[in-house]
Parts: sequence; C-alpha cells; structure tokens
Amino acid sequence: MSGVDILISEVGPRDGLQSIATIMPTAAKKQWITALAAAGIREIEVGSFVPATVLPQLADTAELVAHGLTIDGLQIAVLVPNFRGAEHAIAAGAHKISIPLSVSETHSLRNVKRSHAQMLEEIARIAQLVNALPVAKRPHFEVGLSTAFGCSLEGPVSESLVVQLAEAALAAGCHEVGLSDTTGSAHPVQLRRLITKVWSAVGKDKLCGVHLHNTRGQGLANALAAIDMGISTVDASMGGIGGCPAAPGASGNIVTEDLVFLLESMGLETGINFAALCAARELFAYAMPGTELYGFTPLAGLPKGLEIT
Amino acid sequence: MSGVDILISEVGPRDGLQSIATIMPTAAKKQWITALAAAGIREIEVGSFVPATVLPQLADTAELVAHGLTIDGLQIAVLVPNFRGAEHAIAAGAHKISIPLSVSETHSLRNVKRSHAQMLEEIARIAQLVNALPVAKRPHFEVGLSTAFGCSLEGPVSESLVVQLAEAALAAGCHEVGLSDTTGSAHPVQLRRLITKVWSAVGKDKLCGVHLHNTRGQGLANALAAIDMGISTVDASMGGIGGCPAAPGASGNIVTEDLVFLLESMGLETGINFAALCAARELFAYAMPGTELYGFTPLAGLPKGLEIT
Repeated sequence: MSGVDILISEVGPRDGLQSIATIMPTAAKKQWITALAAAGIREIEVGSFVPATVLPQLADTAELVAHGLTIDGLQIAVLVPNFRGAEHAIAAGAHKISIPLSVSETHSLRNVKRSHAQMLEEIARIAQLVNALPVAKRPHFEVGLSTAFGCSLEGPVSESLVVQLAEAALAAGCHEVGLSDTTGSAHPVQLRRLITKVWSAVGKDKLCGVHLHNTRGQGLANALAAIDMGISTVDASMGGIGGCPAAPGASGNIVTEDLVFLLESMGLETGINFAALCAARELFAYAMPGTELYGFTPLAGLPKGLEIT
Repeated sequence: MSGVDILISEVGPRDGLQSIATIMPTAAKKQWITALAAAGIREIEVGSFVPATVLPQLADTAELVAHGLTIDGLQIAVLVPNFRGAEHAIAAGAHKISIPLSVSETHSLRNVKRSHAQMLEEIARIAQLVNALPVAKRPHFEVGLSTAFGCSLEGPVSESLVVQLAEAALAAGCHEVGLSDTTGSAHPVQLRRLITKVWSAVGKDKLCGVHLHNTRGQGLANALAAIDMGISTVDASMGGIGGCPAAPGASGNIVTEDLVFLLESMGLETGINFAALCAARELFAYAMPGTELYGFTPLAGLPKGLEIT
C-alpha cells in the first residue's frame, strides 16, 4: 500500500503508551498523531478498545480514531482484545483491527483470559461481523500471533503450534496474520525459519508483517532479517517507548527513528521525512517529560551527505 | 582460531576507554581484562601505543599487554598509529597489531597526520619489521580501513578507493585488512557490497573482520549482514562504551553483551559465558562509576529457557 517499499506501522500511541503510567492528555495525543502523519507515517495504531478500568491510558481510543480519520491518507489501526472491542472499533471506523492470539496459552489466559479455542471462536465471530460489512466499510482484520518466538512464562514455544494457529485464525476468517515477538527474544535464524514455515502453510500474502520488540537490543537485526525475506510491514514505536516493567532499561518496540534510517539508507522508501519525525519526537518529549526515549539516530543526526525527505 | 564460530574481539579497553576522560586505574583495567578473559573473550585490544600526552587514558598499554600475556589462551591486540608505535607493540609482545588507514584522507591527516601515501609507507616499514621476526614471535599485522563506509568530515567515500587501499596495504606487506565503520554510518546493503568488492580484489582470507559502531543504532543489523556473508571476526565493546563527544547519547562500538546474545541465540558459538560477561560489566561499572553503559540483554536477562555458558 501507500507507494512505499516498507510500511512502518507506528504503534507508539498504543503499545508504547500502554505501559506508561502517566496519562498522556488526549489533546497532546492528537497533536502527536498529527505530527507523526505529517512526517509521512502511513499507518498508526492509535489505541486499544479495552475497558478504561483495565487501561486508563487508552480510554480515549474512540476519540483518537475519530481524530485520525480526519487526516488524509492515514491508515488508522486499533487493537481489540475481543468481540466487544471489535464492535467498538468498527463503530469508530478504524481501517484495521488487530487481535492478539498468544501462541503461549498461559500468556493468552493471563492477557485476554481466554484459551486458544475461545480466542479462535472470538476471531470467527469478529470475522463474521467484519466480512458482513460492505467492502467500503470493511476494516482489514489481522490476528497477531503473540509470543510467537518465545514466552516469558512458558519459555520456548512450538513452531508447529505457531503454524497451526496461523492456519486456524485464517480458517476462522481473519484476513492476515502477523508474527509478534512479544517478549523480545526472537533471533534472525528463528525469524527466517518461522516466516518460511508460516508462508508454506498459508501463503505469502497472508503474512506480511512483524511486530518486534527491542528488549535485548536485537530489534533492527531482526527487522533486517524479516525485510530481507520480503516482509513488507514492520511495527515500530517512536522513541522505542513501551519497555517492560519487569526489565529495567529494556526498551519496548523497535525504534521508529532508527528503523527509518536503516531502511532509507538501504534504499528502501518509507515515505518518511526524518526531520519531521524528529519534530514529532520533540513534541512527544515536551508532552510527556520524564518518559525515557530510545533511539540513536535522532541524537547523532544523519551521516553527512544523507538526506531522508 | 580458538574453536569458536565467531571471534568477538573486545575493544572496550582501547576504543571504549579512549574517549572517556576519567582515567581508569591500571589495576582496575587489569582486573577487567582478567574478568573479560574469564568470561571467555578470546581476543582483547588492550590499548594503543600512542604518546601519553595525546591519550593519557592509554598510557599504560605496555603494562596491560604484559598483564594480558599472563592469561592463558588470550590473544592480545593493540592499535598503533605509526612505525614507532609498532616497535613498542613488538617489544611488548602483542599478538596482533592494527594500524588505521583512513579511506577519507581528510580524516587520516587529522587522525594520524599522514596522507595515504605516507601511511602506506609506514605500513610497508612496519611490515618489513614484523615479517623479519621469527614466526613464533611475529604478531599478526592488520590494517584497519577506517571511515570505509563514510566520513563525518568528507561525507560519502569512494568504494573503489576502499578496494585500492586494501590492495595497496596488502601489497605493502600487512597480513590482513579490516573494514571499519568509524562514524557509524554503514548500512547492511553497503556492507554486503563493500565486502564483496574487497573479497573479489584481495581474496576472502585477507578480510575476515569488521569494526562497527552503533552511533545510529544499526550495529547489530550490520553485524548480522556481515556474519551472514561469512565474516568471522567482529569487534565489540563491553557496554558499548566509547560514544562520540559530538553526538550525545550515541554509543560507541556495538555492545558485546547484545552481540553475544545475537550470535549464541542464532546457534553460533562465541565461547562466552553470559553470566561471567555480566560480572565483568559489573566490575567495570564499579571501577568507573558514572560511565554510561549501553546494552539491553544484561538488564533484560536471557529469555526463559536459554542458557549461554
């Protein structure tokens, strides 16, 4: 989509903010989303339709979807934990709905209080709802196979289970699956192997994106491995915000700014203007003082002679 | 060498410390080197034979070489800027001598006050000295092609010049050349292209190592690209120490700890025990309070179920 080689899906407003306790004011979030879009970001996951009591930080998701929809050419994505969340997402008019299906059932039970079978049922119900909509109003419905590379509760997960769940999710009617390194334990060899296996089972067009964490600093190496294979959508968060309360200093998603430098220097078009992206970062830093921002390129600047516009 | 798949050459005591103003006491350096070796590090660049007036931090290099030589199985590397430095290195008994040959002549003139022609003459003199030694006492003599991927003074550099200088350095009698991303501007596509070109010109056995900086967070992605091609030696610094005074927050070399996790998780043997490596990091942190240490894996810990011993 969008005339770019690689689509960077900015998940900062959702995955980044959800583990930050200080509530970012809705007005500031809107300014931030506007600035990210102005920098050329084509897709933003603006929030998650979870009960406000569970994640007060994301209570304004519907308002952020509405705001995002006013920005021309911006694809608005949201996360939903269940059928009810999907109903809200559809009512709000989101372009893309993602639901997590944890390969680690232990993690699934803890995260969304549902087993694999229950989640697949939920996915089927959502797919029915989504696919009954007229094409013009139908959001893209993706299932994110979380903990696909390992789980901090279960340890290693079975790769054949990842493949089985990918097949089951697509059979239940979702449009696409994604692979999520929820705990930041993936490595390039594993990524290549798992992408190959899932592609063999479901077809290359049914797995286009990866969601990588930088917990152990491997984010860009993993992104490179995925992109080299032909993955075309990579989630990232501005400033690598997110982190993990259980691992001090361990950042969250891969850093959008550094990913943009990696891709653009390799000659892959992202559609992003680097200076404008740094301006969005500044705007965030001003609105959320004290939040630790990761990423090296904004501090070092671009190499002499390189422009990313 | 050393029965490992990838040789991690630890350059923290040289490249890491040289940009840190606070002098690390020699006794603490020795303890650190011992701890690194105990963790399984097979090669350490312990210092540089430059005048103490230029780099007071590295004034104890001869003493550190002597200390390193007492550690069984440890390869002791040193940097030298010129012939006189090489004489000192040989007198000290270093196993490996590296000299920088900057592809950017502007950088060469500023760094070692010599043009390409003058440096090649210096390299020839050192090679003559080295190759006249009996085999048992002959150090490995490497020329590091610095700024091979770009220069913060000149901007982009010519790839054919990199190849020419590699050929000229080998013709002058050095044993091997290395590619150094001195300014942290390399990207994977460039690395692959340049390694291919140099290999075509001089043979695969004459370029085995890369020296990468993490200035823009691309270090591990670049390391992956190099390793995938068959590069077998990668420089790294514990805690990513080094940095660049001109780029606040921009770390120095790639982080040894995160590199070890990357390689070992991919199934590549480094010979390193991760817990012992973290102990060496703690020892450094204790000796040099206030020095910013990078790296995510020491903070996050290894993924559940993975051991690196």
